[in-house]
Amino acid sequence: MSDIASTLGDLPTPCLVLDRSKLERNLTRMRDRAAALGVRLRPHCKTAKSAEVARRALAADTGPITVSTMREAQYFADNGFTDITVAVGISPSRLGQAADLIARGIDLTVVTDNAVIAGEIVQAAKTRDVTFAAMIEVDVGEHRGGIDVRTDELLEIAGVLRDGGQAVRGVLAHAGHTYACTDPDAIADIAESERAGAVLAAERLRRAGHACPVVSVGSTPGALFARSLDGVTEMRPGVYMFMDLFQSGVGCCGLEDIAVTVMASVTNLRPEQGTAHIDAGALALSKDRSTQSQPRDCGFGLLTDAYGRPLPGLTVEAVHQEHGRIAGVGADPAVLPIGSRVHVLPNHVCMTAAMYDRYAVVESLSGGPKQPVEAFWERVNGW
Amino acid sequence: MSDIASTLGDLPTPCLVLDRSKLERNLTRMRDRAAALGVRLRPHCKTAKSAEVARRALAADTGPITVSTMREAQYFADNGFTDITVAVGISPSRLGQAADLIARGIDLTVVTDNAVIAGEIVQAAKTRDVTFAAMIEVDVGEHRGGIDVRTDELLEIAGVLRDGGQAVRGVLAHAGHTYACTDPDAIADIAESERAGAVLAAERLRRAGHACPVVSVGSTPGALFARSLDGVTEMRPGVYMFMDLFQSGVGCCGLEDIAVTVMASVTNLRPEQGTAHIDAGALALSKDRSTQSQPRDCGFGLLTDAYGRPLPGLTVEAVHQEHGRIAGVGADPAVLPIGSRVHVLPNHVCMTAAMYDRYAVVESLSGGPKQPVEAFWERVNGW
Repeated sequence: MSDIASTLGDLPTPCLVLDRSKLERNLTRMRDRAAALGVRLRPHCKTAKSAEVARRALAADTGPITVSTMREAQYFADNGFTDITVAVGISPSRLGQAADLIARGIDLTVVTDNAVIAGEIVQAAKTRDVTFAAMIEVDVGEHRGGIDVRTDELLEIAGVLRDGGQAVRGVLAHAGHTYACTDPDAIADIAESERAGAVLAAERLRRAGHACPVVSVGSTPGALFARSLDGVTEMRPGVYMFMDLFQSGVGCCGLEDIAVTVMASVTNLRPEQGTAHIDAGALALSKDRSTQSQPRDCGFGLLTDAYGRPLPGLTVEAVHQEHGRIAGVGADPAVLPIGSRVHVLPNHVCMTAAMYDRYAVVESLSGGPKQPVEAFWERVNGW
Repeated sequence: MSDIASTLGDLPTPCLVLDRSKLERNLTRMRDRAAALGVRLRPHCKTAKSAEVARRALAADTGPITVSTMREAQYFADNGFTDITVAVGISPSRLGQAADLIARGIDLTVVTDNAVIAGEIVQAAKTRDVTFAAMIEVDVGEHRGGIDVRTDELLEIAGVLRDGGQAVRGVLAHAGHTYACTDPDAIADIAESERAGAVLAAERLRRAGHACPVVSVGSTPGALFARSLDGVTEMRPGVYMFMDLFQSGVGCCGLEDIAVTVMASVTNLRPEQGTAHIDAGALALSKDRSTQSQPRDCGFGLLTDAYGRPLPGLTVEAVHQEHGRIAGVGADPAVLPIGSRVHVLPNHVCMTAAMYDRYAVVESLSGGPKQPVEAFWERVNGW
């Protein structure tokens, strides 16, 4: 039924709506930012997972891009992208798929932070008769993936790769702890330690004779607030394409920049409780509660009306699998009439969008229910 | 690559694994329970979302089943199921799809709890030239969907349906607040109030001249611990098929009954922190933290080895999009070797399974990596 929808109002709910005007504004902003910082933009496609979005992010058709799963790498390769970095430490179980992409001519880069998996990469290269390009992930303070930049193991990993005939393409850092900030100066300080750590690691590798051409950093807050990226060659922000309530809380955008919403319908009212229910719950919104740690806790999302205008005070306060309970409705049934449509601004759009197989694209949400649906853009989910 | 996997060990990670022996034990237990209570089992397929699982749950091919979305209803209809209740209050935007299924000959039941949407049902029936069968959702204490069983509005909703020529099939209750319990007696008390509320609502409707043939209750804890379901005609448990850590915390099962796990690979070790990372993170496990409210907080999941044997003390303590951080590993690299495989027991399997498009089915996880993969069973996700 939704395949023949001609307007937003014709779509069954819940569905994922993409405001193309906001998207393009966000994309332009980050391309300008990369140019100002003098680094290449290798956008992270783990948020959008869409070839249509990636092409617009790059204003180009083949890359460079970043992905987080091998299924994404395969999807983007199938859609004409040729320069792809899989920025999550590779599992040995995925090396066969990686080798297949390299054998197809894709310039694929894999990542690890330890000598054991470096050894597995060397082994897979022999078995599959390909050469891998690998980057070494370094820890710049988040203590997630990554090897401490000052350790001997950094050089050991590079040695295993080189001795095994594989290319040491460079170093990769991700300062995910910028997400804990709400102050631009604090973000800039973390971005500087990310820059300095990645550059130091690259210098150590170069002194040991590795060319190490790529120095890669990432994160939307870091990209927006870094004072300098001297010595860095590329950056990998991703969520900036769509933005969300969490990024708004960090200070990366305003609510008016959030390009992706979940359109939902009001299915009941409880005037005696001041609540209503919508047909978007834990699956349609995700259970991400990341704004809980920020000054403004947005529950499971904030509401707008059918034209994308904020409905102040209306929050998704609880979710069940297919129900979202809206607080702040009051006793007046005209505030949120049964059957009416709303949009939910997502807490964490990477999690919310992952539940949908496509975007309903409109020029602007402000056109409301009569706005034509321009296109459905597919997403690639899963592994 | 995974399509030609012949053993569990050949599968790339992360992936969703279904232990068929545990599944069948759980299914038999609930069929026996329904028989002992003297009610029809209309299993809720919102957890498994799989025709293969639903057929085994019923030991029959066409129903009766319960679903939570119209996409599920369409999927099960396409797979030969003919008796389907959509147990979430219907959004007007989905009535067209419901009418299409009825026109195809599916015995579809929709649900609402208010007269506005009852009116929309009547309108859609006229426009589409079909007759709907509708159930009225009643609130038995959870205060989610459902109308208070004592109100005039209960009769008003039924009146709108009958006057509009639609069938009032009965009443439907869901005592989701059993999930807050960890004591069988407390669950049994709630199940009794669910039973009594649903029966009272049906009696009120019958006194007003509605046949009201179906009195439907649901929830896995209620189904397992109810003392009696006198006056009830059917029950709709769902998560019992797979079970999960949350249901274990409620007392509905043991850890050894959990039939679905996420298989993951260890991608790094941090002996100085006592942690490791696996390639299953926020998307592969979900961000559901429902066990946080229970006596045993399981983080984002508990670990077993590659044979499904518990690894005491190992918990997924934090997740990023594609990373899970394991606490409790200690400094010995032999505890969780890099590249080795583990399984994560899910907190809330409805949320975790929703991220996957299929199950890798094995006879028993205890067979470990050499265990043949019997089949891949598809799931239907989204809306």
